[in-house]
Amino acid sequence: MADLRIWKFHGTGNDFVMVEDLDDVSPLTGPLVSALCDRRFGVGADGVIRITRAEEGSDAPFFMDYWNADGTVAEMCGNGVRCLGKLVFERGHTGETEFDVDTRVGAKHLRLDVRDGVVAAVTVGMGPARLAKRDIPMTGRDPDEPFVGEPFDAAGRTFTATAVSMGNPHIVLLVDEDPRDLDVHRIGPLVEIDARFPNKTNVEFVRVTDGVVNARVWERGVGETMACGTGACAALVAANEAGLVPPRATVRFPGGDLVVERTDDQVYLSGPAERVFDAVLDEAWMRSRGLA
Amino acid sequence: MADLRIWKFHGTGNDFVMVEDLDDVSPLTGPLVSALCDRRFGVGADGVIRITRAEEGSDAPFFMDYWNADGTVAEMCGNGVRCLGKLVFERGHTGETEFDVDTRVGAKHLRLDVRDGVVAAVTVGMGPARLAKRDIPMTGRDPDEPFVGEPFDAAGRTFTATAVSMGNPHIVLLVDEDPRDLDVHRIGPLVEIDARFPNKTNVEFVRVTDGVVNARVWERGVGETMACGTGACAALVAANEAGLVPPRATVRFPGGDLVVERTDDQVYLSGPAERVFDAVLDEAWMRSRGLA
Repeated sequence: MADLRIWKFHGTGNDFVMVEDLDDVSPLTGPLVSALCDRRFGVGADGVIRITRAEEGSDAPFFMDYWNADGTVAEMCGNGVRCLGKLVFERGHTGETEFDVDTRVGAKHLRLDVRDGVVAAVTVGMGPARLAKRDIPMTGRDPDEPFVGEPFDAAGRTFTATAVSMGNPHIVLLVDEDPRDLDVHRIGPLVEIDARFPNKTNVEFVRVTDGVVNARVWERGVGETMACGTGACAALVAANEAGLVPPRATVRFPGGDLVVERTDDQVYLSGPAERVFDAVLDEAWMRSRGLA
Repeated sequence: MADLRIWKFHGTGNDFVMVEDLDDVSPLTGPLVSALCDRRFGVGADGVIRITRAEEGSDAPFFMDYWNADGTVAEMCGNGVRCLGKLVFERGHTGETEFDVDTRVGAKHLRLDVRDGVVAAVTVGMGPARLAKRDIPMTGRDPDEPFVGEPFDAAGRTFTATAVSMGNPHIVLLVDEDPRDLDVHRIGPLVEIDARFPNKTNVEFVRVTDGVVNARVWERGVGETMACGTGACAALVAANEAGLVPPRATVRFPGGDLVVERTDDQVYLSGPAERVFDAVLDEAWMRSRGLA
């Protein structure tokens, strides 16, 4: 195997090892991905994104081959696909500022905000928000009915809650206090495994101040993260349904700001993508992990 | 500022961003160090090591300018100086396999184990182990007296304990169970701030099996780490004082194996140093943090 060159990116603190493989000749493996993502013995990241050309017949120029840090294949990641958009433009693989990227869950539309040749922000169409209980999925008498602005008892208190599907399930809890003061590490896991969500759920804690959706997120199977793309969409949808913000607003996570816009058929997520470094993996390191 | 090139190394999971600055023209700053060490928004490391030539008049060819992840200057690090040894040899800055490195606490002697041009392991003289209570420092009627193999009550049980200074204070607790089964995160902080140690202390949990010193470490002010150089020395000294191992033995941490040898005037620490990647920091990333 030749030298492995990688780029390290992050979007609001969600970080990725990016690999260019436009000719699709160097497939990822679980051991390579988990060795790369190891934060002390490897490069360190939430996941690995391999960029290839999309399959013949696709309208998209690129395919996002996305893997989780644990070495398993993953479906889509809003922060990750924004990082991909920045990389392919700045590396000269496309001159377009609007194009599709194929993912394991279909094509995603990207729009790049380019200033002086640098991609300052990327907007991605995250698909529609769905509110029916069956789309979450969530228990309840009528599966067609939404669960919007309802009282929700959990962790010894009553929240005002809205359930949103962005392809994955979210329950958005509207709170009166600053989310920074909440015991997310106690409440999050209790709600994640609440019996009303047979597939478990992601959990957002949200308070709107001065038109900004202040949020923290507890990700299903992961724990608290610095920010979450689908969580930002769900938070905006819930706050908009409650009449607290217009259909377009800033969602502020501990890891940074995202802008979310809800239209009739789609939720758009905009935010920064940052390139931290580009690197060449050491051959001896690769060999010692059985990767070269 | 020109492109900043860095190398990422680790020794038994203790990881470092290494910067070559032999002409001593690019001093580190606290903000640069903490930005580099940030594991999500930066490169990610326990510390940054800048390598310069030693001052005129020194017998050492190199100086280790070592900083902690929080952006403060630090004194010495056994795993870090081993990584420095590998880098300067493999990058061709020296052809010697034995040389001194100046640090903020004096010169440290390095011995490289080179195989086919690759540095497989590095041994560093860590200085003498001191056992008198005043050297720890530790309360007790006679400050000249050592605290070796004594009963030590903490966290609701009685340990057999030995206090060792390797320049920094250690209390080594000999335990009967596998250290992996111990609640280090409960016991460690209780012992760290025990009133008998006015400067607080590092804590090692040790059991000897088949001649190997199995250890976990709770580092003062840090928490549990994958391995610790001075902790390995203290663990070997305590196990040797107890007659459980000869003066040279393997110390096995969760992050990997180190070999420690105790002589009359010095404790030698040997272990692997691994180069993971070399990288160039992105200019826009540097600028966004006020670093370029």
